[in-house]
Amino acid sequence: MPDFAALSTPALILDEERCRRNCARLRDHVHALGAAMRPHLKTCKNLEIARWCMESPQGPATVSTLAEAEYFAAGGVRDICYAVGIAPDKLARAAALRAGGVDLILTLDSLEAARALLAFARERQLSFAVMLETDCDGHRAGIAPDDPLLVILGRMLHDGGQEVRGILTHAGSAYDGGTPEQLRQLAERERAAAVAAAGMLRAAGLPCPVVSVGSTPTAHFAGSLEGVSEVRAGTHVFHDLVMWRLGVCEPEDIALSVLATVIGRRADGGLLLDAGWTALSRDRGGPGGFEVHGYGLVCNLDGQPYPGLCIRDTNQEHALAHGPYTPPLPVGSRVRILPVHACATAACFDAYHLLRGGRIEAELSRCRGW
Amino acid sequence: MPDFAALSTPALILDEERCRRNCARLRDHVHALGAAMRPHLKTCKNLEIARWCMESPQGPATVSTLAEAEYFAAGGVRDICYAVGIAPDKLARAAALRAGGVDLILTLDSLEAARALLAFARERQLSFAVMLETDCDGHRAGIAPDDPLLVILGRMLHDGGQEVRGILTHAGSAYDGGTPEQLRQLAERERAAAVAAAGMLRAAGLPCPVVSVGSTPTAHFAGSLEGVSEVRAGTHVFHDLVMWRLGVCEPEDIALSVLATVIGRRADGGLLLDAGWTALSRDRGGPGGFEVHGYGLVCNLDGQPYPGLCIRDTNQEHALAHGPYTPPLPVGSRVRILPVHACATAACFDAYHLLRGGRIEAELSRCRGW
Repeated sequence: MPDFAALSTPALILDEERCRRNCARLRDHVHALGAAMRPHLKTCKNLEIARWCMESPQGPATVSTLAEAEYFAAGGVRDICYAVGIAPDKLARAAALRAGGVDLILTLDSLEAARALLAFARERQLSFAVMLETDCDGHRAGIAPDDPLLVILGRMLHDGGQEVRGILTHAGSAYDGGTPEQLRQLAERERAAAVAAAGMLRAAGLPCPVVSVGSTPTAHFAGSLEGVSEVRAGTHVFHDLVMWRLGVCEPEDIALSVLATVIGRRADGGLLLDAGWTALSRDRGGPGGFEVHGYGLVCNLDGQPYPGLCIRDTNQEHALAHGPYTPPLPVGSRVRILPVHACATAACFDAYHLLRGGRIEAELSRCRGW
Repeated sequence: MPDFAALSTPALILDEERCRRNCARLRDHVHALGAAMRPHLKTCKNLEIARWCMESPQGPATVSTLAEAEYFAAGGVRDICYAVGIAPDKLARAAALRAGGVDLILTLDSLEAARALLAFARERQLSFAVMLETDCDGHRAGIAPDDPLLVILGRMLHDGGQEVRGILTHAGSAYDGGTPEQLRQLAERERAAAVAAAGMLRAAGLPCPVVSVGSTPTAHFAGSLEGVSEVRAGTHVFHDLVMWRLGVCEPEDIALSVLATVIGRRADGGLLLDAGWTALSRDRGGPGGFEVHGYGLVCNLDGQPYPGLCIRDTNQEHALAHGPYTPPLPVGSRVRILPVHACATAACFDAYHLLRGGRIEAELSRCRGW
């Protein structure tokens, strides 16, 4: 049993062996299908972990904030895709990163954003690299893969001296659930949408060197990545109860857990723990998830789940654990809680405590803010 | 219209006038009922804001983590109740605070916690001040107000050289909803439970100088605080959409908002904003709340809500706003989002941007961690 005595609770524990295994598993699968990894570093937000999942210490990488881009650039990552639609007032920071030698790639999906980027680039005599976002599942952002707006934007940017780097899509609806067969179909739809959009750009004589897809579920269930050059996934480095429910991983693949202490026992047997929503987040993990795992599954210190013991409620600094059989753990006992959504739980903490060979070996900090 | 141009989004905006007015309103109400304020500083986690809501710069105050206690103690707060059941391994930090001259008051509700505290205190020859927690609504922690365990614990602590400071209860179920009349009844139940428990201690010849109640809804709806010495409330400094739904405040009382930028517009008219769950939290605000306000209400820069425009979904760095009529705000436009749960939204940020007299005047940092 690992010795956690030196840690104050709640604390975020990262199992290095599981994390490295998760990284290798998806990389091997993506490589076998002929594509490269561009892991989404919004999940880990730490340089050392990023190096476990990137193809090389210089990238490629994906980020969701410019703060992440700046942090990873300072750590030597040179090829970074900022995969959130660029807001006009963030162009100056993006330009500064590019001026510093980072190949920062921006994303957009509207005439307005393209015009703002072109105006800024013209005034400063700059050239940005841009991904055009296409929508494969109606989940969030992007232009339909058969919408001529893609070509219009590509043409505007290209003629305005910008570099059209390629097509980007994200099957975000994969997190909402589905059978393995549905996830395989969604992965194929994601691939086909990106390839179709890229084909439209190329047919119009525009460059489109990169075809980028990615969500952790579709990346694992993809049967083909024909025509795709890179896969963005991030949650796979840790995995979580959402990924378990979707059939992407087993509980013993989940590399992240929250160490917590029993601070009380209710008359109904429920255990009160000192890990509230400040430590676990309030993420419920998509439709139907909360009923299965609540705000987390409670394990012993070896990481073995107590059968059915879930976090049924949280307050700011309290969690209430209940199960069909709730072990009568005395006040002061410690447990580990598997996260519903690894990105959200990790975001609650400033650092990971690295578990390596059964010992807490190091503290890895996380980049914060925007 | 305030000038937010210098701020990068997402950013946390605090309206000082509203905040001070909220603090004064509850203080006046509590004073009129003959009790004192012991505000819960877990909501604001900042010394300057704490001074707006405390009775004096030295307190009294309530906290939910020892990190908060240490931070506020360093800022001169001397009377601090740590209102979460004490874990045995946190006693050393608590003792260090007391050794530094802070009247840190601990909370417990079990034989196990009392035994651990007594063993630690005996070994170090210390005396802790302790509140016994009683349960007024089955919400979370505490001993039933008529359970003789309260007297047993009080006797053990008293005879063991510890100071029984009083009785503490929290009507946490008030956040789950109810009519004003139900909240009035719950406030009365909270008061009566605390007073009954205190009476039992006193009848046994034990000291019980403090009778402490508090949740923001019950504090506002209390018609009597007879027998109560102090009220702990925290959310009232900012208010939020939960408090609005409960009838505790109006939208124009909500002092906290998240500044965000439009980064895209969907074919269905939905607006994509750069404030995801990292900025808004995933708090849905109790039963039935999500249907009313989603993850937040969207306002213009003056803080006027766009009618019915809510955040219907979030990802890590995206929010999707939809309403019966969604204004076609261009990419690059800015909005302000009212929080569902002020404690949770504030916890996403490291600092507040203080809005004073229509101008952003200062940055106030927040204490973090545990």
